[in-house]
Amino acid sequence: MSTAPEAETDIYTRRESVVRAYCRSFPASFVQAQGATLTDEQGREYTDFLAGCASLNYGHNDPDMKAALVEHLSRDALTHGLDLHTPEKAAFLETFEALVLRPRGMDHRVMMTGPTGTNAIEAALKLARKVTGRTNVVSFTNGFHGMTLGALSLTANLSKRAGAGVALTDVTRLPYDGAFGEGIDTLTQIEAMLENPSSGMEPVAAFVVELVQGEGGLNAASAEWVRGLARLARAHGALLIIDDIQAGIGRAGSFFSFDGMGIEPDMVTMAKSLSGYGLPFACVLVRPEHDIWEPAEHNGTFRGNGHAFVTARVALEKFWSDDSLTREVAAKSRLLETRLGAMAARIDGARVKGRGMMRGIDVGSGSRAAAICETCFRSGLIIETSGAHDEVVKVLAPLTIPDAQFRAGLDILEEAVDNIVSLPMAAE
Amino acid sequence: MSTAPEAETDIYTRRESVVRAYCRSFPASFVQAQGATLTDEQGREYTDFLAGCASLNYGHNDPDMKAALVEHLSRDALTHGLDLHTPEKAAFLETFEALVLRPRGMDHRVMMTGPTGTNAIEAALKLARKVTGRTNVVSFTNGFHGMTLGALSLTANLSKRAGAGVALTDVTRLPYDGAFGEGIDTLTQIEAMLENPSSGMEPVAAFVVELVQGEGGLNAASAEWVRGLARLARAHGALLIIDDIQAGIGRAGSFFSFDGMGIEPDMVTMAKSLSGYGLPFACVLVRPEHDIWEPAEHNGTFRGNGHAFVTARVALEKFWSDDSLTREVAAKSRLLETRLGAMAARIDGARVKGRGMMRGIDVGSGSRAAAICETCFRSGLIIETSGAHDEVVKVLAPLTIPDAQFRAGLDILEEAVDNIVSLPMAAE
Amino acid sequence: MSTAPEAETDIYTRRESVVRAYCRSFPASFVQAQGATLTDEQGREYTDFLAGCASLNYGHNDPDMKAALVEHLSRDALTHGLDLHTPEKAAFLETFEALVLRPRGMDHRVMMTGPTGTNAIEAALKLARKVTGRTNVVSFTNGFHGMTLGALSLTANLSKRAGAGVALTDVTRLPYDGAFGEGIDTLTQIEAMLENPSSGMEPVAAFVVELVQGEGGLNAASAEWVRGLARLARAHGALLIIDDIQAGIGRAGSFFSFDGMGIEPDMVTMAKSLSGYGLPFACVLVRPEHDIWEPAEHNGTFRGNGHAFVTARVALEKFWSDDSLTREVAAKSRLLETRLGAMAARIDGARVKGRGMMRGIDVGSGSRAAAICETCFRSGLIIETSGAHDEVVKVLAPLTIPDAQFRAGLDILEEAVDNIVSLPMAAE
Amino acid sequence: MSTAPEAETDIYTRRESVVRAYCRSFPASFVQAQGATLTDEQGREYTDFLAGCASLNYGHNDPDMKAALVEHLSRDALTHGLDLHTPEKAAFLETFEALVLRPRGMDHRVMMTGPTGTNAIEAALKLARKVTGRTNVVSFTNGFHGMTLGALSLTANLSKRAGAGVALTDVTRLPYDGAFGEGIDTLTQIEAMLENPSSGMEPVAAFVVELVQGEGGLNAASAEWVRGLARLARAHGALLIIDDIQAGIGRAGSFFSFDGMGIEPDMVTMAKSLSGYGLPFACVLVRPEHDIWEPAEHNGTFRGNGHAFVTARVALEKFWSDDSLTREVAAKSRLLETRLGAMAARIDGARVKGRGMMRGIDVGSGSRAAAICETCFRSGLIIETSGAHDEVVKVLAPLTIPDAQFRAGLDILEEAVDNIVSLPMAAE
Repeated sequence: MSTAPEAETDIYTRRESVVRAYCRSFPASFVQAQGATLTDEQGREYTDFLAGCASLNYGHNDPDMKAALVEHLSRDALTHGLDLHTPEKAAFLETFEALVLRPRGMDHRVMMTGPTGTNAIEAALKLARKVTGRTNVVSFTNGFHGMTLGALSLTANLSKRAGAGVALTDVTRLPYDGAFGEGIDTLTQIEAMLENPSSGMEPVAAFVVELVQGEGGLNAASAEWVRGLARLARAHGALLIIDDIQAGIGRAGSFFSFDGMGIEPDMVTMAKSLSGYGLPFACVLVRPEHDIWEPAEHNGTFRGNGHAFVTARVALEKFWSDDSLTREVAAKSRLLETRLGAMAARIDGARVKGRGMMRGIDVGSGSRAAAICETCFRSGLIIETSGAHDEVVKVLAPLTIPDAQFRAGLDILEEAVDNIVSLPMAAE
Repeated sequence: MSTAPEAETDIYTRRESVVRAYCRSFPASFVQAQGATLTDEQGREYTDFLAGCASLNYGHNDPDMKAALVEHLSRDALTHGLDLHTPEKAAFLETFEALVLRPRGMDHRVMMTGPTGTNAIEAALKLARKVTGRTNVVSFTNGFHGMTLGALSLTANLSKRAGAGVALTDVTRLPYDGAFGEGIDTLTQIEAMLENPSSGMEPVAAFVVELVQGEGGLNAASAEWVRGLARLARAHGALLIIDDIQAGIGRAGSFFSFDGMGIEPDMVTMAKSLSGYGLPFACVLVRPEHDIWEPAEHNGTFRGNGHAFVTARVALEKFWSDDSLTREVAAKSRLLETRLGAMAARIDGARVKGRGMMRGIDVGSGSRAAAICETCFRSGLIIETSGAHDEVVKVLAPLTIPDAQFRAGLDILEEAVDNIVSLPMAAE
Repeated sequence: MSTAPEAETDIYTRRESVVRAYCRSFPASFVQAQGATLTDEQGREYTDFLAGCASLNYGHNDPDMKAALVEHLSRDALTHGLDLHTPEKAAFLETFEALVLRPRGMDHRVMMTGPTGTNAIEAALKLARKVTGRTNVVSFTNGFHGMTLGALSLTANLSKRAGAGVALTDVTRLPYDGAFGEGIDTLTQIEAMLENPSSGMEPVAAFVVELVQGEGGLNAASAEWVRGLARLARAHGALLIIDDIQAGIGRAGSFFSFDGMGIEPDMVTMAKSLSGYGLPFACVLVRPEHDIWEPAEHNGTFRGNGHAFVTARVALEKFWSDDSLTREVAAKSRLLETRLGAMAARIDGARVKGRGMMRGIDVGSGSRAAAICETCFRSGLIIETSGAHDEVVKVLAPLTIPDAQFRAGLDILEEAVDNIVSLPMAAE
Repeated sequence: MSTAPEAETDIYTRRESVVRAYCRSFPASFVQAQGATLTDEQGREYTDFLAGCASLNYGHNDPDMKAALVEHLSRDALTHGLDLHTPEKAAFLETFEALVLRPRGMDHRVMMTGPTGTNAIEAALKLARKVTGRTNVVSFTNGFHGMTLGALSLTANLSKRAGAGVALTDVTRLPYDGAFGEGIDTLTQIEAMLENPSSGMEPVAAFVVELVQGEGGLNAASAEWVRGLARLARAHGALLIIDDIQAGIGRAGSFFSFDGMGIEPDMVTMAKSLSGYGLPFACVLVRPEHDIWEPAEHNGTFRGNGHAFVTARVALEKFWSDDSLTREVAAKSRLLETRLGAMAARIDGARVKGRGMMRGIDVGSGSRAAAICETCFRSGLIIETSGAHDEVVKVLAPLTIPDAQFRAGLDILEEAVDNIVSLPMAAE
């Protein structure tokens, strides 16, 4: 093998795979991160409306979590513990029980999977198939659930799916709420498919659904549709799995995206903001009657992240002991909706999509959305797109972003929108 | 939903999934970890011959990595950065280039995947299929490559595979070196299968192989067999993917398990001890001509673990700047081989398996191996089994374990072996 | 092995698999068959409204075909010829060209497959995937295309599908015309799925569709829907395959079920009445630009049925040299529609379905439909059901049935309907 | 659509798919067939050593079968009867019971499938999976079982498999007897794979095996290997399915290819020479305890071929009422072996393969074998090749071929071999 000509290229070109992506949109080197602010090596500050794709709902490097983590490090508590017992795991579980599960009357158990969302999805798939003895899992148009083979089979995006290089099987795709436009009730069609023995659908092991589709374009399912789906699942012996990896932990306005809807999901997948600090951590919540695993039937080397137990516990204590964050999010959500509505009104055919602090503007084309994001970056705002055509400019600001910074960020966005609107739109 | 009766049960029973496993074999609560020593809440110390299943090759909580991590935390450097550029990522890549790749003449690029081994495997599978335009991947009897659907299709263990609940496709299983006993050259058979157009095998996209099978029973492939496989792969237009997740980073005696064999793998998957500190971190090394991804064609929320960049860099600087660790491992390996040989000699039909610091004794039955491990635990040694029947007692001590502690641990193991030998063996 | 107690059981119980089915509904032994009349060993005559499931569109044992076949036999012409050239094959092809293809301006070639419909479907699937380089084939709710693994993957019926015992892959199911009721335009939804890159559908190799669903309940697609589907197929680079196995050869009112609709199918599958005499014979019509097979890439031992070449040619000459059969079928179709309409009017919620001489009454429940058929049999009429719930009483009389016998058969059916209507309907 | 220019091309070029194959090797038009003789339209006679790929074991147009068929036609007995009862079906079953099953102590039932071998295989696959509740079916290197999707998944030939255009799943390929050369006992390896829970094999529903591989190169399994396979199947809860489509009905020397081996197959698939007259007819023999179908769970339009019932019964009565045919075949087999042995001795590296009247010479290359067959055709002998590289010249003469004609045909073959041997061999 010959060595690449090191003098001529930077280290990323030389040694990082071309699969890298965000660094292409945001070509800076970031040296510091605090709250909603990133700082690059030139000392330039950016407001972060991407927030690690909703992995940093409490912002970067929260000081309380940091302090607890440094304390943990200083006394050589366990970093890597497989699934051994540690006080940190116990404390996390107890806090999660006390602040999250018990107040909602949820009897779910926590399954620690490999430390990333796609692994939680893979585990949930296995368990749903084991519980029901069925293979067919339903996922929805525009859904995104991860990039490993099982999760990818649920994911709708064609270019992501093509990456598999093999057939993605044992999944039936059904239309999400609103997939065929306003007048068409997709739930009725789903029911028709389930009740027709010649619909060509195998019996359903589980429905896997996001209540707000983070990657699929910020489509939000109505509570009524979700309740209908829960009812159909129950009637047809299928499990209901809520994928709350992106919409959960406050992002959609409440801890779980399904809070207040009156449903009891059989499983909930969690990751992203679960650790609170951006550390890899994922789990599946499972109702006890479905928790029928053999020991280690699904496992993973990093299924016990000692650091994440600490920060996740602190996050729960700090933000979910009372309803102050929820109220703060509600206020910001209203602001966000209003501001985005005003922007959308200025773009032909644009509309606001999403729920809570997971909203954006469908600007009608991917090139237009990309242009807006690019303009924002030049003005110090990090923001990305979503949707089947990348046509939605998506605001995923930290829930804890200071009000003034939030408004300033929205000002930058508005200016970028205005700027685009003033240009003639290219044919796509 | 009713709430579980909290008074009556401990938090794990109440709220952790029954899938948990190691805590069943080692029922203590661990409060501290340093080097090769774990301490439980009663203050009892244990020597760790499990080492996070080879994720802690440098032991627990290395002080230099810890210091660097605390420093990183203290200045709010990026924890979660997706695949944005950061000085920490650049430093890791530069160090990896300088200390690992360049000295070996390897021109590979580093693909950061989701932070766990199974994700690295999934990425490698996708890329091999994309590069070759073929779907069929060969893996081997007794191989283990992970638990997500794509990786699981490569994994040989029946009970793990059964967990999928669906057909595991697009993989052909071929016999590993020695799979049919001493006299049978499996490489010749593999060649016969490849050259017979009616063998029933589709053209091969890639061979995925561990050079020491960590979960499959510490089977070690000979250098000659590995070279033969590399030759066959090249001759048949297939990629050679070395899964070095468990055997790499010094575990098999050298940084890569294939060092010195004269082969050039097309890809190498790495995880476990890559971060050095037990933090979730994984990557695929890819030869540049195969690095043909579209940006984000495979991605993952936690694909840039800022903390792991720091500790991984320190680990490389500390342990791989010169050959002192390699020499230390060689010495310990010899000791290990000698001691295990002596123990095996006392058990009817037992034999030593493995390579480097990845060795064990096949004691002929899973129940016997389990009994040995259980006895060890009561004597303060944490050690586990491996193999199709869990029949191999596996020593995965930290490479850096102090000599005296290593010998003391082996003494405990020897005593447990002696103890078992003195008992009549139950029929299995 | 022990021998079954022969004295105690009849030969069918003793030696024929329990999979046998029609003989359970029609428990007689039939010794003779002529036109639309079957005669059992007691000399009792039955009118045949089943017609070999549309394999006997010209009735049983047509005298002209019989004479030609006896002549063929008498001079030891080839019975089994693989795909060798014979005068009989040439004559069949020339007649098919002259009477069927050329008048319609069809440039299709004839691929002789194994002698049954499911084999024609399997061949068409392979070829569509080869031509397009895509794997995903669309079939429709309530579609039936055969029982071998590839054809079964297209078939919608759950109990048939369950027979596979393995996952049926590489097929997407979309809603047939009218599948969601009167108000819902399924074509618009199909278009939405095709145009949304996050619909979760892979690019489509082919649409496989019956224009009247013989097994699925006699649902008939409108010409407008068919044209729309043809347009979508073309726009998305997919082939259009019309499965005319049951609806073709005059059954739906014209030689092909798509005659007069203004479409050009890329392939047409034919079997059932193709030989005219009930002999096993099947083919795929393929447009020349898609006829890219390697020799023998798909083959089959019985792909050249010498006897069928003879009878199929005679059938074409006798019935399709002019439009007399078409006009006769049109007249009978009107009568059938009128008579069935009158019957349906007497059953709550019943309705007439189908097209041409492929019509029936949806009587609302499988048990009711079965009761009607049973009553008919006792009165000398052989008739069967269709539909996802076997809820449609299906008339498949020979197209050539004498008018008086047709009316008499319909009288028996009407009486059976009246008889059922007078009974209280059991809960199902 | 434009019409092909008819004046310029013959009917086959114009209207028959390019998939046609045998007519390319044997470019004549055949007008008559009697016994082992084919006559073309120029009146030239050919001896038939292809015999419809073993579909014409009794030669073409046997006069007794013909007479019975003409009689059947003349009295309008049922041609197409689905699975209704007819005297002809009963007579066939009774004769099959009396002459085939009862003398062997076989309690199997007869399942009439679609009228071609691949359909029998598809039915057997379904039933084996249903009976065992397992999905994985084992087939063997160089095996051939048909071209529909399920059967094709069992078939080993790469170019045939590639025709599927999709992944062929749920099958494990294991090495046939002798697949790795003389010294290697593949049965031991199969056993090792079955007994290793980390072999990567799922539990086996069935082994599907030909005792002489007709398409795969006339490899013949030893009785010992077959018995071993039967033993392993039983021990591991798998069914043993003998595919006797090509090797059965006397071809391998006895009615079934497994006669006298002391095994009891769970299922036997039959087709090709089953009707005796070259008519499409296939069935699966099933042990009664496995005959657990629901009515019509597998079906097919042409599953009751009235004509074939007649000729098959006559064939059994004529040829299997006593052992005269068996003795005649034994004598011819010895002659064949001797003559082929003499020919093989003249070709470097050639060897005789096969069993009974299913033998050939492996001449070392496909081009050499093709040249031999081409020479034979010019001398009035129709003969074809077999094997992964088409390297075996295969003799499939009718079992009933007159002795003088058989010897004359072998003389032509010998001359062609001599002719080739005298030429320098081209590099392949």
